[in-house]
Amino acid sequence: MEDKISLSHGSGGKQTNDLISNLFIKYFDNEIIRQMNDSAQLYLNNNRIAFTTDSFVVTPAFFKGGDIGKLAVCGTVNDLAMSGAKPLYLTSAFIIEEGYPIENLETIVKSMAEMAERAGVKIVAGDTKVVEKGGVDGLFINTSGIGTIYEGINIEANKAEAGDVVIVNGTLGDHGMTIMCERSGIDIQGELKSDCAPLNSLVDSILDICKDVHVLRDATRGGVAAVLNEIAETSRVSIELEEDSIPISEEVKGACELLGLDPLYIANEGKLCCFVPEKYAHKVLEQMRNHPLGTKAEIIGKVVAEVSQRVYLKTIIGGRRIVDMPSGQQLPRIC
Amino acid sequence: MEDKISLSHGSGGKQTNDLISNLFIKYFDNEIIRQMNDSAQLYLNNNRIAFTTDSFVVTPAFFKGGDIGKLAVCGTVNDLAMSGAKPLYLTSAFIIEEGYPIENLETIVKSMAEMAERAGVKIVAGDTKVVEKGGVDGLFINTSGIGTIYEGINIEANKAEAGDVVIVNGTLGDHGMTIMCERSGIDIQGELKSDCAPLNSLVDSILDICKDVHVLRDATRGGVAAVLNEIAETSRVSIELEEDSIPISEEVKGACELLGLDPLYIANEGKLCCFVPEKYAHKVLEQMRNHPLGTKAEIIGKVVAEVSQRVYLKTIIGGRRIVDMPSGQQLPRIC
Repeated sequence: MEDKISLSHGSGGKQTNDLISNLFIKYFDNEIIRQMNDSAQLYLNNNRIAFTTDSFVVTPAFFKGGDIGKLAVCGTVNDLAMSGAKPLYLTSAFIIEEGYPIENLETIVKSMAEMAERAGVKIVAGDTKVVEKGGVDGLFINTSGIGTIYEGINIEANKAEAGDVVIVNGTLGDHGMTIMCERSGIDIQGELKSDCAPLNSLVDSILDICKDVHVLRDATRGGVAAVLNEIAETSRVSIELEEDSIPISEEVKGACELLGLDPLYIANEGKLCCFVPEKYAHKVLEQMRNHPLGTKAEIIGKVVAEVSQRVYLKTIIGGRRIVDMPSGQQLPRIC
Repeated sequence: MEDKISLSHGSGGKQTNDLISNLFIKYFDNEIIRQMNDSAQLYLNNNRIAFTTDSFVVTPAFFKGGDIGKLAVCGTVNDLAMSGAKPLYLTSAFIIEEGYPIENLETIVKSMAEMAERAGVKIVAGDTKVVEKGGVDGLFINTSGIGTIYEGINIEANKAEAGDVVIVNGTLGDHGMTIMCERSGIDIQGELKSDCAPLNSLVDSILDICKDVHVLRDATRGGVAAVLNEIAETSRVSIELEEDSIPISEEVKGACELLGLDPLYIANEGKLCCFVPEKYAHKVLEQMRNHPLGTKAEIIGKVVAEVSQRVYLKTIIGGRRIVDMPSGQQLPRIC
């Protein structure tokens, strides 16, 4: 390990995982933290519970399609939903810079309240810390959440198996590219905005028709590339993607070409990867497309029985290349 | 309300409460958040659960008697214990400045792991965000926690009633004064160090012999003055303290005189106020004194049937003065 924290330790890629393994799991070690799921899955008086936490440091705090408050509620709701849980209760903790406009804080709090209502969760406890000017850049929010895992559902990062298909619920890279463009002052023509949304009702609609979902993961920091690599490693499988099936908007495609970026590595805040056995693939795809948050859903690839534990991309011109775990830091403070 | 956030909004006193009422509770409004307890008390499949969150921004991060990691685990464990819950699971979320020494991070993580073991809780989920140099001052930690509320226990901020006595488990002001001295470079002779400790085993020992505890509250930001004023208001009672019963170490007394401060307003991280009916007072006091974290426990006052909802101090020379809710900011970033 290096001797100083670098931005890549927070990227959601290789260095983040190294830090988690070599430091946090090393010292906090227990059977629950070792699961490496989006939420911890645990028993409380014989009830299966999901419990998760996330801090939000996005800059700018207000962007097309949302703000840090919307992100903070959706992010935690989604982590719970990805464990097959019904999100129920959230806490919210603010760290605010002295001098921060209360009007902005009010806009953020309102947007959290709206998202909580939309997602059907209650914000039940909170904390407010204020630090001196310069001690924090604006405002950071932590949300933690608990939910009850649906009976008969067993969704875990280690459950992907050969024969599963991978479905995403729409176009990739919208959130990260929105932030990137706002920050760099690039003005993309068209409809580009953050896809930030609470995905629990979409997950509910999937589980309504298919209990046998193996893995669910929202593709946030590090994009689809990071989450699929994590799942490949945790489940000890390989994953093969079809380039021409991956839904990407014209705006994101254009911006990626302009900036030399790969949309597979760009953060989403309203997109999930769903692993189901092939026999359910079309039923689940159809169900997702009937949901407002899944109209552009696509089957993007499948799990293959290959020992390399890698993610591959079959390119449009017929090649096959490795989609590596992201390394280094593409864009800090994306969420 | 003012139009900008000031340090006093994070002091735990009047301005913090105004912000909570006028902003957070206004928008997040639900029956659980309105309880104003240290933890939210809620039902999950018919189980009574406590759920809480706290962010820690203390500076310096390392101080006599502890560090930010120890504080982060104890703070959340204590908030759960103050609801009569057995603390079970914690999450930990780090926001770290680019360039932060990994050696320091490791010391903090080790100290969290040690405290978690001592308190009998598991850290089951986490999050790591890294922000650019200058985006955050060093390292901030959020811990959230859940626990199950013991059967037959009903501890809430609104349950204090006339005839209750108020017991504290030891000397007041040790944590805040330690931080204050470290920051101002004042070198106090003697044993002054933070009292930071997990109080759940002390609470367990109290509940073992007395189920009829009305209120428990750890006296953190704003000190005993803030928590007693909150309880007086929430329970619609008044509280009368006896100055000569309040345990304060010689070091804190000396430093307070030097700096012109009142120890009742100084933060503690290992002290609680316990409200029990007078008939149990001596039994509970004795039990606390038999616990390593309560050897200097004292009965410091009682709840009186007076409509003013205020806290009074009967002084040593026979006067009676009001102990107001703290207003403004004595010392930011104390926890």
